[in-house]
Amino acid sequence: MENTLLLNEQAGAAQAAVNELAGLSTLEKNKALSDMADTLEHRQRLILAENQIDLTNSRNKNLSAAMLDRLMLNEERIHQIADGLRKIAALPDPVGSGLMEVKRPNGLDIRAVRVPLGVVGIIYEARPNVTADVVGLCIKSGNAVLLRGGSEAVNTNKIISSMLAAAAYSAGVPEGSIQFIDPTDRSLVTEMLHLRKYIDVIIPRGGSNLIKYVVDNSTVPVIETGAGICHAFIDKSADKDMAANIVINAKTSRPAVCNTIETLLVHRDIAKDFLPLIADKLSKYNVEMRGCERTRAFCPDMAPAGEEDWATEYHDLILSIKLVDDINAAVSHINTYGTKHSEVIVTNDYASAQFFQNKIDAAAVYVNASTRFTDGFEFGFGAEIGISTQKLHARGPMGLNALTTMKYLINGSGQIR
Amino acid sequence: MENTLLLNEQAGAAQAAVNELAGLSTLEKNKALSDMADTLEHRQRLILAENQIDLTNSRNKNLSAAMLDRLMLNEERIHQIADGLRKIAALPDPVGSGLMEVKRPNGLDIRAVRVPLGVVGIIYEARPNVTADVVGLCIKSGNAVLLRGGSEAVNTNKIISSMLAAAAYSAGVPEGSIQFIDPTDRSLVTEMLHLRKYIDVIIPRGGSNLIKYVVDNSTVPVIETGAGICHAFIDKSADKDMAANIVINAKTSRPAVCNTIETLLVHRDIAKDFLPLIADKLSKYNVEMRGCERTRAFCPDMAPAGEEDWATEYHDLILSIKLVDDINAAVSHINTYGTKHSEVIVTNDYASAQFFQNKIDAAAVYVNASTRFTDGFEFGFGAEIGISTQKLHARGPMGLNALTTMKYLINGSGQIR
Repeated sequence: MENTLLLNEQAGAAQAAVNELAGLSTLEKNKALSDMADTLEHRQRLILAENQIDLTNSRNKNLSAAMLDRLMLNEERIHQIADGLRKIAALPDPVGSGLMEVKRPNGLDIRAVRVPLGVVGIIYEARPNVTADVVGLCIKSGNAVLLRGGSEAVNTNKIISSMLAAAAYSAGVPEGSIQFIDPTDRSLVTEMLHLRKYIDVIIPRGGSNLIKYVVDNSTVPVIETGAGICHAFIDKSADKDMAANIVINAKTSRPAVCNTIETLLVHRDIAKDFLPLIADKLSKYNVEMRGCERTRAFCPDMAPAGEEDWATEYHDLILSIKLVDDINAAVSHINTYGTKHSEVIVTNDYASAQFFQNKIDAAAVYVNASTRFTDGFEFGFGAEIGISTQKLHARGPMGLNALTTMKYLINGSGQIR
Repeated sequence: MENTLLLNEQAGAAQAAVNELAGLSTLEKNKALSDMADTLEHRQRLILAENQIDLTNSRNKNLSAAMLDRLMLNEERIHQIADGLRKIAALPDPVGSGLMEVKRPNGLDIRAVRVPLGVVGIIYEARPNVTADVVGLCIKSGNAVLLRGGSEAVNTNKIISSMLAAAAYSAGVPEGSIQFIDPTDRSLVTEMLHLRKYIDVIIPRGGSNLIKYVVDNSTVPVIETGAGICHAFIDKSADKDMAANIVINAKTSRPAVCNTIETLLVHRDIAKDFLPLIADKLSKYNVEMRGCERTRAFCPDMAPAGEEDWATEYHDLILSIKLVDDINAAVSHINTYGTKHSEVIVTNDYASAQFFQNKIDAAAVYVNASTRFTDGFEFGFGAEIGISTQKLHARGPMGLNALTTMKYLINGSGQIR
């Protein structure tokens, strides 16, 4: 109850800041970002001390080595985080840029310009670098931000966000623009999801359970991010070496991230040549393979894949493999089991490439390139707040523009209707 | 229960249609729209007969004369509805238009193109012309549509939507693209709001209670429309005749619609001259005025306005009036009580105009023109699916583009990361 009141106050203070925040000039915001970066570096010992507390607590809770590594900060990582803020400062400011302008027959001049969304609530899991990243993107786009990170990183996130808030405030960013929400009280997540009065959008970043909880419970508009059951379809005309390179890269270069493939679909006409080749290569990368019956006819050592495999995001070095009769079967499988994230066809056939890009319903549809490119930096946006897997507002990698809305400015000389 | 199963089947059939629907050419869609228009005109007697049933039932339920007029069709109105479909056919097709294209340093070619949203669910109140309008906009933008209209218009909407569906199907639009949801079972609205699997967006069109219910209960993404507490602020430098014309137009030309003003804010330095002038004019238009204490000092006959007046959308010839000390007080009042729809300043001061447009948080911010221009046709979009009062996805008048999303098409030559 006390926490709920505090959350309401925090969100109210954030909303109270938005008008002034929206009016900051690009120079003012860039100065704040630069000061924020400097603070993190100058006061890194304090951050590392708090991070040690989180690490010790997490070791006592038997967190996995991978989780501990994601949580751990050192001098080099803090430098990278600070540098991330400086890179955001160097990006073009989306606020105020014109989206359209028309002069109507009655003389009205109608313009649409980008403006900040207002208050952005982020609910995210363990990595502390997300804290500075998200704050940087929100401040650059003129938004206030409420940070609800993972409880494992509570002390690290708290010190980072308070340092950022202090540096921003000194640089002229209004109080209330950057706020840390206590992650030890889980009921506050649910509270946040209902603060429509103060919060303009909620962005969940994390596993599918978190995202599903947010979507099911929020009355605040949500931008869904990150769930990725991605596929590679190897068409009969594919260059087999190119196909193998793409599959290896899309599965093994970072298996825990969302733009990794989970299922390989192989056209039956190329299966006899391609399946043994790719199985041999994948086994050298320690990828566990699970095949459909027809795949296992070519690779008898492979474990069987079941219905649940097609619907699983492994986040791991595991790949399910299915032999399909034609491109229609591949498209149908992908539109059934995919999460509308990233899909690729490897082909040398013009009509197949076109058909695949037209018929697949996903944020990013590739021909002859790894799905791992679905990323704000790789797309040239210079930053990324997440990868939207929904269709409204933003789809695919979200840069600074995704944190803005627009308003129409209409200038007249007394027109009435 | 039986209805719920049917609704699930209908929504599933709509989702099953989206892939083929998205692939229709502009010519195919325009032919369907033209055939749909012809059908309504050729078979208008059937529509008028069903409309008579709805009118009789509604008279027996003592619906107001205004409601009966909104429900009533005649030959001329059916002609207008058909013509609306022909006008939609004449608009440019948003599907397939390019939004960006970049060649990345690694040779990847990344394009973003508009694609349909998929399945659009519309929940709307009485007017039967909305049925054809919405179907036309959805088909033109390549979306399937589920129509849940008002129960008063059940027979009229049913015959119109079945005629449109039949004409569209004959013209090559896939079955399931246009479906009528039984409005007599209210539980189906709640069911619709949870069919995330099949429905991509819900657009409520109607009163604030309907919109609030949809927003509070939907797990399907929602585009809010239409609530409008709009204001006119008369600055001290305003041309008094221009100000009076704008206030009269914005209040009286169609008082029941959302872009009408509900509150007039008057700068204290112009109050002595302007308030008696505008009160005199408004009374000639039979506008009931409710003033704050300081307003009533100039217009002692005026009824008093209370706190609840500032928060009320009258939908009627009623106007609340408040005297404010300066532009800051006006902006603060508007950002507190407004619904982020349309706001206007009447001024001859450059800095005031700029300040107002920068500080007001609304879809449309006017200088020296009536708020009644917030409308898809007046903005030159050629059509309108509603006026969004939210910040995500679409803001202000929504034309065909608001019914689309995009996908990235990435073409490579074997790039890996």
